[in-house]
Amino acid sequence: MSTTSREIHLVKRPEGLPTLDDFAMVETQVADPGEGEVLVRNLYMSVDPAMRPRMSVGQELNEAMGGGALGRVEKSRNPAFREGDLVTNRFGFREVFTSEGRGLQVLHPEPGLPLTVHMGPLGGTGFTAYGGLLHIGQLKDGEQVYVSTAAGAVGSMAAQIAKIHGCYVVGSTGSDEKVRWLEEEAGLDKGINYKTAPIRQTLKAATPKGIDVYFDNVGGDHLDAALASMNSLGRVAVCGMISGYNEAGSRTAVRNLSNIIYGRINLRGFVAPDFMHLYDQFKSDMAGWLKDGRVKYQETIYDGIGNAPAAMVGLMQGANNGKMLVKLAD
Amino acid sequence: MSTTSREIHLVKRPEGLPTLDDFAMVETQVADPGEGEVLVRNLYMSVDPAMRPRMSVGQELNEAMGGGALGRVEKSRNPAFREGDLVTNRFGFREVFTSEGRGLQVLHPEPGLPLTVHMGPLGGTGFTAYGGLLHIGQLKDGEQVYVSTAAGAVGSMAAQIAKIHGCYVVGSTGSDEKVRWLEEEAGLDKGINYKTAPIRQTLKAATPKGIDVYFDNVGGDHLDAALASMNSLGRVAVCGMISGYNEAGSRTAVRNLSNIIYGRINLRGFVAPDFMHLYDQFKSDMAGWLKDGRVKYQETIYDGIGNAPAAMVGLMQGANNGKMLVKLAD
Repeated sequence: MSTTSREIHLVKRPEGLPTLDDFAMVETQVADPGEGEVLVRNLYMSVDPAMRPRMSVGQELNEAMGGGALGRVEKSRNPAFREGDLVTNRFGFREVFTSEGRGLQVLHPEPGLPLTVHMGPLGGTGFTAYGGLLHIGQLKDGEQVYVSTAAGAVGSMAAQIAKIHGCYVVGSTGSDEKVRWLEEEAGLDKGINYKTAPIRQTLKAATPKGIDVYFDNVGGDHLDAALASMNSLGRVAVCGMISGYNEAGSRTAVRNLSNIIYGRINLRGFVAPDFMHLYDQFKSDMAGWLKDGRVKYQETIYDGIGNAPAAMVGLMQGANNGKMLVKLAD
Repeated sequence: MSTTSREIHLVKRPEGLPTLDDFAMVETQVADPGEGEVLVRNLYMSVDPAMRPRMSVGQELNEAMGGGALGRVEKSRNPAFREGDLVTNRFGFREVFTSEGRGLQVLHPEPGLPLTVHMGPLGGTGFTAYGGLLHIGQLKDGEQVYVSTAAGAVGSMAAQIAKIHGCYVVGSTGSDEKVRWLEEEAGLDKGINYKTAPIRQTLKAATPKGIDVYFDNVGGDHLDAALASMNSLGRVAVCGMISGYNEAGSRTAVRNLSNIIYGRINLRGFVAPDFMHLYDQFKSDMAGWLKDGRVKYQETIYDGIGNAPAAMVGLMQGANNGKMLVKLAD
């Protein structure tokens, strides 16, 4: 016996912004699990900015686009998994797959919170923000903080964690509606719309005491603007550089990097595995913040695997509020 | 009574490379020291790449160009200084000055070494290399190291300190003659001439095991080339970005900075006061290395204050071998 699945393959490397034509949906038959295997049906797929550079380098063509997902074990011939177990995985844009269990983590959902928080604030997204800010950025209470893509999945978490630490927090985003969310819902001190005025001037005006920590998701002109306002011994936690992901060659030109010399600025790229020692503390902190409403979150959920390419394209154009997900099944 | 002195003033902010016209020599009369003051005659003035960005921002026009110097106390009415004391100072391009003593440090020359080593390898120049590599760059024995402007004052020290720590060391420079010095005198594993082939390719070929620590004096294309070869968790100690000093606005465009994310690279700007706790260890280590010949150094000495502008212009064009100095008196 076998199960019908559909996958979204990358069939072309995008030049500039990805388009729907870069993807194709492919129907496959997934054989029943053999001894030691499980069969998993994905419920939600994550759509992340970091997938874009992998579309240029790393992701194989004509294979399912890799990425984070949350599924449920439908059949198990592996004693480590029971039918009905929820499992997070990195097998990406596909409905059903079998696995020997490597790369599957059983998820025990936090009671009292929606399941999707594990794909966002209480998952890798939130953990990236938490460790990036506290471990990589070495945030101290009461510092001056700037977060770019502050209404995005990671940025909105970083900005609110900084607020909880008593910081003055400025966030940049791409629409007035998102600015309102930042100021009125997420409680930031100041939101700025980088599309309506040059980021360098608006950021300078919004940070009268300079910037001690910049949580960077954008690079390029946003990083240049931040460097022009950084305080001495400031830290830049470099989580992403989305500004460069869609340029030819996925490059970002930064022009005033020499500011880091006299300011003795530390720029540090990171990925979440760099601070796994903080994971338990993160889960406990964030679950509490979500339950008592101190951390707000948004999610944009596209329905059905056929909409995964549109979700990816939309993410690159800022169509999302907060975490971008694709829902596949209940 | 008074003493005649000459000073080199910055009279124009350079656009691009500095020219002789950006400077003027001005004769002044320096009054005898008052109570609590000393009168100092400079013996040597230091000519540093870091002076260039200050010519655009920081240095006042129509005042003596600031910078490091070594002088001798000629008259003292301050009990902290005796006539004949050697004093390092930051009063820059001038022959004679009076001071209340602030910013003057009495120098006790290291026996058995020429006086000028205190302006180079055994002075701020060497200390910048030492702390930049060991403290900021967190160098570990046996690592893969790349140093730019490796035949320059700071670079040549950084490269040789890395060799003493058992590292594989590649240095880039701007002439075949300097490449020979790096390989044959300074003992580097590989010297590359960035003017005869694209730095990105030559650096890649010269670093088969990648780069763990890049000691950056150049920025721009050299930093881009290094980022393309950095190993995971690599460190970039950013000492200078000379490539950008002479562009309009003193800017350096770096295009593939996003490499730091997945490589989890740490870029850190620094100045020597960041690691003063290493100073005594540095003096002891470096004096030993110089005496036993493990560290070689070069210096290019222009004669007379009138040649200070030419020394500055020459430095920016790579006319120096090692430390660039102007000699004023014996």
